[in-house]
Amino acid sequence: MTETTPGWLSSDELEMTRARMPILYVEAVPVRVDDSGEVTSVGVLLRIGPDGTVSRTLVSGRVLHHERVRDALLRHLEKDLGPVALPRVPTSLQPFTVAEYFPTQGITPYHDPRQHAVSLAYIVPVTGDCRPRQDALDLVWFSPQEAVSEAVQSEMPGGHGVLLKQALAHAGCVI
Amino acid sequence: MTETTPGWLSSDELEMTRARMPILYVEAVPVRVDDSGEVTSVGVLLRIGPDGTVSRTLVSGRVLHHERVRDALLRHLEKDLGPVALPRVPTSLQPFTVAEYFPTQGITPYHDPRQHAVSLAYIVPVTGDCRPRQDALDLVWFSPQEAVSEAVQSEMPGGHGVLLKQALAHAGCVI
Amino acid sequence: MTETTPGWLSSDELEMTRARMPILYVEAVPVRVDDSGEVTSVGVLLRIGPDGTVSRTLVSGRVLHHERVRDALLRHLEKDLGPVALPRVPTSLQPFTVAEYFPTQGITPYHDPRQHAVSLAYIVPVTGDCRPRQDALDLVWFSPQEAVSEAVQSEMPGGHGVLLKQALAHAGCVI
Amino acid sequence: MTETTPGWLSSDELEMTRARMPILYVEAVPVRVDDSGEVTSVGVLLRIGPDGTVSRTLVSGRVLHHERVRDALLRHLEKDLGPVALPRVPTSLQPFTVAEYFPTQGITPYHDPRQHAVSLAYIVPVTGDCRPRQDALDLVWFSPQEAVSEAVQSEMPGGHGVLLKQALAHAGCVI
Repeated sequence: MTETTPGWLSSDELEMTRARMPILYVEAVPVRVDDSGEVTSVGVLLRIGPDGTVSRTLVSGRVLHHERVRDALLRHLEKDLGPVALPRVPTSLQPFTVAEYFPTQGITPYHDPRQHAVSLAYIVPVTGDCRPRQDALDLVWFSPQEAVSEAVQSEMPGGHGVLLKQALAHAGCVI
Repeated sequence: MTETTPGWLSSDELEMTRARMPILYVEAVPVRVDDSGEVTSVGVLLRIGPDGTVSRTLVSGRVLHHERVRDALLRHLEKDLGPVALPRVPTSLQPFTVAEYFPTQGITPYHDPRQHAVSLAYIVPVTGDCRPRQDALDLVWFSPQEAVSEAVQSEMPGGHGVLLKQALAHAGCVI
Repeated sequence: MTETTPGWLSSDELEMTRARMPILYVEAVPVRVDDSGEVTSVGVLLRIGPDGTVSRTLVSGRVLHHERVRDALLRHLEKDLGPVALPRVPTSLQPFTVAEYFPTQGITPYHDPRQHAVSLAYIVPVTGDCRPRQDALDLVWFSPQEAVSEAVQSEMPGGHGVLLKQALAHAGCVI
Repeated sequence: MTETTPGWLSSDELEMTRARMPILYVEAVPVRVDDSGEVTSVGVLLRIGPDGTVSRTLVSGRVLHHERVRDALLRHLEKDLGPVALPRVPTSLQPFTVAEYFPTQGITPYHDPRQHAVSLAYIVPVTGDCRPRQDALDLVWFSPQEAVSEAVQSEMPGGHGVLLKQALAHAGCVI
C-alpha cells in the first residue's frame, strides 16, 4: 500500500528520495544533570539493527514535512525514551554541531550506508523515568568518563561515538 | 528532459519532494569585517523574483545529495557573489541559528510559500570583490544600523529580515 | 570593617580593582518555556538604583574568587528571583554572547559608569515561583514582542535592552 | 618601580588581585584551514616555564582594563605568533567554550596553580607567517589526529590538552 498523505513518503518514495537529496535528521544526547546544570551521566541506547547486529546509539530520527525541529526532537525522544522521560528541549535551536552522514566513508567522521543525512545535534537533559521502546532494547547511563572509553566508543559505529564525544566536549566534560 | 543522475532532481521530482520532505538549505550573511573581526557592513542582495517583484535577500540555496554543507556554502556564495569574493567559511559548522521556513505562515518567523525549508545560517566574512550574478541584480553594503532599519527590513520578506537581525545580534551589533 | 577573607574584597579594594581590571560578571535572561522549549515569556526585573532611578534590568552579578560560573549563576538567580524559582542552568557554558560593559560610552553597545565588566550571558528557563528580593522591586513577565518594544527597551539603560534582544534573537523569537 | 597608570597593575597588586578575584583571560587555538574552512592543522606553542619545564600550550593571556576582548585576542596572537601571522578573529564573541582554571585541582578539567582564571576560548585561523616570540620557543603545526594523540596531550598540562580537544570537537574533527 502506498502512503499518499502529503508529508509522508511511501517506502519506495523514501528510497528514491534518499538517493537524490540529503535527509534532515535531529539527534539528541540524553543527559542527567545536577542542580548547577553540569552533566553527571549520559544515556546511550542499546539497539539491534535489521541485520541482528547489536550497537549503541543516540536518540535520532527524521524531521517530517511541516514538522518543527522542536517537535521532531520531542517525537523521537518519546519514541526512544518513552512518554515520561520529561526531556528539556533547548530554548535555542543552535545545535552544538551539525553531523553530516555520507553513504561514502571518509568524507566526514560520520557514515550512513543508507543515505546522505544531515543531523542537527542537541544535548537534552531528561529528568523523568526513561523506558526505551520500539527497536531500542535498553538505555544505559554512563558517566562522561565511561562514555568516552574505548569499550563504549567501539560499540558506536557510523560516527555516533564521535558525536557523543563532541557533545561532552561542548558540555565541558573531560574527553 | 528529465535529469536522471542520482543526486539531481528533475523539476517534477523536486516539486514532488518539496510536498513531502523538509528541504535542507544553507544561508550566508556576507559581511565586511575590520582587523579585529568586528562587522563593519553587511551585504544584501537586490533580487527580482519570478513574478517581477523586487526584494532584498541573503545568499541561500539547497544542499545537494552528497554535497558537504561547506561546499554548498561555497557554491552558493560563488553563485551569488561571483568567483572572487574570497569568502571565509567558518571553521565550525555550528550555525548561529536554524531557520525553519514553512509554507504556512505564523508557525515560525520564516515563510516560504513553495516549501518547508530548513536552513543552516552562517555569518561569512568576504574580503574580495563581489560581483553578483544570475538572478541577483545588485549587492548593496549596509552598515549594521542601516541593515536593521525599517526601510531595509520592509524589503526583506519571508523572515529574511529577522534572520539578518539575528546575524547582527550574534555578531554583537546594536539591533 | 574591612573584609579580609581571601576571595572577598573590601569596598576600597573593589573600587581599586575596578579601576585596574575587567571584572567578570554573569548575566541571566530568565524565561518561561513551553514543552517544546520555545520561549513564551521573558522575565525583567524592575529595580531602584542607588540614586532612586527606576530601571528594568536582567539577573546579573559578579563571579567571586574560586566560584564556578555555574555557581555564580545559581547564586544570582536565587538572589534576584528567590529560592524557589527552580532555574535550569544550561548544560554548556558556551554563552549566547559576551557583553563588554565599558565605563566609556560608545566602544560597545554596553555601558557601566562604575567599571569595565565582561559578562557571560545565558538564557535560563525558570519553572518555579519567582519572588524577587533585595533591591529588586518586582519581576514582570513580558511576551517576546513586548520585551523588544520601544516602551520596555527605553527603560533598560546601559545596553541591557540590546542584550535582551540578543537573547531573544538567539532563542529564535521575532525581534 | 610600581606601575601607577590606571588599568595596569604592579606585580604586588596583581598578586593581591589574583588571590581575591577571578582573572579574565582569552585563549586562541591557531589553525590552518582550507578554502572550505575545514581545519587542516593546529598550532601548538612549545614553551619553557619559569622553572625550566618544557610544555606545549595555546595562545593565551589576560584581558586588560578598558581593552576589548577582540583587542586582547589580537595582542596575544601577535605576542605569541609574531606580527605577520594574519589572524582572523571571529565575527562573533560567542566562544566555543569558557575554561575555568582553578588553583585547586579537580573542580574543573582546568588548573592554574597561580590563580583563578576564566578564559574565553576561540578558534582562530591564521593565514600568514608565524614567528613565535617572547617566552615561546617554537610553534609546531599538528594534524588534528596528532594533536589529540597521547604524545601531544601528555605535554599539555593544566587542562590545555582538554581545551585543544574541545576546539577540535567544535570544528568537527575526529577526536
